[in-house]
Amino acid sequence: MILEKTAFTEDSVENMISGESTFKVNIQNDIYNTLDLYPSALLNGIKTTLIYPATEKHIAKYTAQDMHLITETAQDYESITLPYLNREQFNIQWVFNILEKKTESERIVFEDSNPETGFILLPDMKWNTKQMEDLYLIAIIHKHGIKSLRDLTPEHLPLLRNILNKGLSAILDKYHVPASKLRVYLHYQPSYYHLHVHFTHLRFNAPGSGVDRAHLLSDVIDNIELMPDYYQRKTLSFSSKENEKLSVAFSEAGRI
Amino acid sequence: MILEKTAFTEDSVENMISGESTFKVNIQNDIYNTLDLYPSALLNGIKTTLIYPATEKHIAKYTAQDMHLITETAQDYESITLPYLNREQFNIQWVFNILEKKTESERIVFEDSNPETGFILLPDMKWNTKQMEDLYLIAIIHKHGIKSLRDLTPEHLPLLRNILNKGLSAILDKYHVPASKLRVYLHYQPSYYHLHVHFTHLRFNAPGSGVDRAHLLSDVIDNIELMPDYYQRKTLSFSSKENEKLSVAFSEAGRI
Repeated sequence: MILEKTAFTEDSVENMISGESTFKVNIQNDIYNTLDLYPSALLNGIKTTLIYPATEKHIAKYTAQDMHLITETAQDYESITLPYLNREQFNIQWVFNILEKKTESERIVFEDSNPETGFILLPDMKWNTKQMEDLYLIAIIHKHGIKSLRDLTPEHLPLLRNILNKGLSAILDKYHVPASKLRVYLHYQPSYYHLHVHFTHLRFNAPGSGVDRAHLLSDVIDNIELMPDYYQRKTLSFSSKENEKLSVAFSEAGRI
Repeated sequence: MILEKTAFTEDSVENMISGESTFKVNIQNDIYNTLDLYPSALLNGIKTTLIYPATEKHIAKYTAQDMHLITETAQDYESITLPYLNREQFNIQWVFNILEKKTESERIVFEDSNPETGFILLPDMKWNTKQMEDLYLIAIIHKHGIKSLRDLTPEHLPLLRNILNKGLSAILDKYHVPASKLRVYLHYQPSYYHLHVHFTHLRFNAPGSGVDRAHLLSDVIDNIELMPDYYQRKTLSFSSKENEKLSVAFSEAGRI
């Protein structure tokens, strides 16, 4: 069970500072006062995710633990990461459920159904869709078999440009947030190996938007245009939890 | 009035997930469920700061300034950014004061005095040097005239590798934090145009370490090795406050 406190909304703040909340004063100094405010329970919900039954991998994913930075050369990808991916055979049935509209179809914001360049755009689980300050959507591509950044070559440029252009225009249409307010990026390593793209509001310090994990989609397109085999040659650094299996594999190979 | 939601404590979580909280189910997909949880008000206080009366300066400090993402092509750099830098003639006397040891010399953690490849490493003003979780140091190069990422070419590789290697080993010696726990990066745009490198702890979500501003030094070295004129050709995106002069220049040129 994962508990997350959510961002304030304009409505809830108005109600919180009205007469119905109780409070306790902690410090008073000149014009500065600190208090604890206790709004009514319904104004102050906690976003909860229940994964049941949870696997060891789920537990590792959410356990607070030390991170380290891993430097993956092209050679490391071939000799460590790829064998790890083949060995683990992750279950991504939930992704196919979304693409086949068996689940969450009512949450779809936009779809381009082209099998080569199409995708489904929907709000990330972390976003309650109520306020724009922490806007977070995910584009999941229809095409199967593109695991991550490492697989991308010039043949995927139409797909990547399509996600960038149509994703941004769908968000403008539906939420009135322009492209200049959005950060559009891929994760490396991703949390699941079916290509997907993150759209978050620039004002939102989204988890995973740091330089140690995020790659702007516009940079990805530009890099492939500059050098067709960029993502097959580039050394990529990423942060990883110490007890994750991929970390262990790098550690066993003497690469940490 | 500033409202901040606080971190969970072990006690409060235990009580929150006990019988007294109410909840509402939002999404169910396979083993994944999302809910809203409403713990009792006293378990879910909000840290509140009241400044009364607040001056204009207080209000400006806490007003969220709108950011936007600017996409700078190589051509934009020549026609907008470079003329802006020449026009503004920023005063960086304080940087020279550090390099000449007129100020802050007692704060220096490490120095390599080579005029071509040397640098001074010292704690960033934002770090109190007491705990490692928010470790933040800056390496400022001795050589003058390298404004930013955009100026970097293969002739600077010895300088860049030297900063990475000696900076990391100085931090290991002095603070016992190994390279694998550190994020080493440059800003684009930087806040001052004399080349400097940021070293922050991976566990610290440092301001400016997001993909919309930070460039890992190891990536910079690797990119120049892959393509000597990478930083003269690459389109670079960066976030900028809307009322900053460079934003205004891009806006006037019709590039936002």
